[in-house]
Amino acid sequence: MSAPSPVLVDLKFNPEGIAHALKTAFPDRGSINLADPADAARDLRAVEYALLWKPDGDLFSRAPNLKVIFSGGAGVDHIIGMDGLPDVPIVRFVDHSLTTRMSEWVVMQCLMHLRAQYAHDIKQRRREWAKLIAPEAAEVTVGVMGLGILGQDAVAKLKLLGFDVIGWSRTRKSIDGVETFDAGGLDRFLGRTDILVGLLPLTPETTGFYDRGLFKKLRGGALGWPVFINAGRGKSQIESDIVSAIREGTLGGASLDVFEVEPLAADSPLWELENVFITPHDAAVSEENALFRHVETQIARFERGETLQFVIDRAVGY
Amino acid sequence: MSAPSPVLVDLKFNPEGIAHALKTAFPDRGSINLADPADAARDLRAVEYALLWKPDGDLFSRAPNLKVIFSGGAGVDHIIGMDGLPDVPIVRFVDHSLTTRMSEWVVMQCLMHLRAQYAHDIKQRRREWAKLIAPEAAEVTVGVMGLGILGQDAVAKLKLLGFDVIGWSRTRKSIDGVETFDAGGLDRFLGRTDILVGLLPLTPETTGFYDRGLFKKLRGGALGWPVFINAGRGKSQIESDIVSAIREGTLGGASLDVFEVEPLAADSPLWELENVFITPHDAAVSEENALFRHVETQIARFERGETLQFVIDRAVGY
Repeated sequence: MSAPSPVLVDLKFNPEGIAHALKTAFPDRGSINLADPADAARDLRAVEYALLWKPDGDLFSRAPNLKVIFSGGAGVDHIIGMDGLPDVPIVRFVDHSLTTRMSEWVVMQCLMHLRAQYAHDIKQRRREWAKLIAPEAAEVTVGVMGLGILGQDAVAKLKLLGFDVIGWSRTRKSIDGVETFDAGGLDRFLGRTDILVGLLPLTPETTGFYDRGLFKKLRGGALGWPVFINAGRGKSQIESDIVSAIREGTLGGASLDVFEVEPLAADSPLWELENVFITPHDAAVSEENALFRHVETQIARFERGETLQFVIDRAVGY
Repeated sequence: MSAPSPVLVDLKFNPEGIAHALKTAFPDRGSINLADPADAARDLRAVEYALLWKPDGDLFSRAPNLKVIFSGGAGVDHIIGMDGLPDVPIVRFVDHSLTTRMSEWVVMQCLMHLRAQYAHDIKQRRREWAKLIAPEAAEVTVGVMGLGILGQDAVAKLKLLGFDVIGWSRTRKSIDGVETFDAGGLDRFLGRTDILVGLLPLTPETTGFYDRGLFKKLRGGALGWPVFINAGRGKSQIESDIVSAIREGTLGGASLDVFEVEPLAADSPLWELENVFITPHDAAVSEENALFRHVETQIARFERGETLQFVIDRAVGY
């Protein structure tokens, strides 16, 4: 029996953190880190497992014998559609820490809109004492789009904070105590939603999905205006429509962690829009040690002949 | 049997909201609103129930036959110690809405410190894309001081968001799954606390309680610095100590809803301190309709000979 093949790592984020964490990861088989000059030209033909985030374009021709592909994040849109993508299982990164962090961000953004943090901040800078009476969470309906692991955790935590929560997914999901909608119920879902939370994967159907027409269907309710929050994928939103919707008052606020092009250009009008909170795609950062442990766990399952977890459905793209 | 006496109302907040809500409140007995010029000089000798927030100094001599006093908020420090305060039950305002709103504010402030909202805001204003990697909530210990109804609700919600939570109260309270401390365990509690959440009532013991010496005992841990959050009473904090603690780095941040003197003076240095969020005592605003319903419920209980709820212990002051 030959020695286990090293794990191929091509992750286009946080190179220092990854190099550091790789020193102790995969002790039984080692790794080849394409970001390391000493590894960049290595022969990859024997490699069976690859952990990828926005991999090199020639990766699949250099590594033609992959058995499993692991995504370095929750999404796989950076791999799907690449030339030469082999017909092997693609495993998403699902991790308790990633889920928890995403819910922290979603709950915080919903609360900041509920409790008028933007207006409070302006008053504070003006040294002005002016009570702002907010509605209670129960009076505001948060509509969560995307009811996978991230969406369901966000739904549960928003409910515990007291928000009225409804959910939408392409195919209907049942969640105890939460009204849910599917593709056919989209307009009814939007018409009931005051704060829209986007946690959709990027697919052809969700590309450019959050647009002016959609924003116009939102309700507003007790806040007085609808709010759009996106922590899914930037290419699902039409940023010029967000800008005009905020300026016209179709939207009263937004929180965006993802953008059509990242990093967001310094001259984007989004940075300075009223009641818009911008974060630089750090709502839920993949933590390297957790990522490598997840890959180790799945490789061990695979080699014992067990089912891989979190395998995506290539037909729908997530 | 004489007609029921009207409820005396002397609430020094939101006069328009109160006047409006009083139109439909207490339909069986009516009310006397001292803020209404038509009522200001009324004879109060027959009045049995008074609903008060920072009442007039001569109120108890004008209304010498009170049977029950209701506070317009969760605290009673604005009444305790007043000249002529009769020896009758004093009932605090406890309301689901008030509790929920307070927890919304506490959770939001803890998340804003966890997720470096202040730093994100500065980056946004500079149009600067820079990921800020925060610890996960589980790595940060929130110490809640005051484990009454508000404190216990905040503890539960902070835990559900993933924070490590510990609690302190003068006399020890048992809460499932939460380590709690009492007066004798104060230093151990503070030494374990990264984010201190103050929800203490104002009493002689808690006056000037949050001072430099106390801030120095806090931990900091995964955030890199301790944070002080106060939504209890402003007179429990020494604001000059908060200012120096932030400037020296003893504290790395704060969120304050209450102040030694309110409104907070425009020339207070607190307004512009780094990583300090100021709100104008609107974290949990008494909602008038809920307040009046609560008073109606308690009067009905009292007149049926049942025990009043939420009566304060005058010996300890809350």
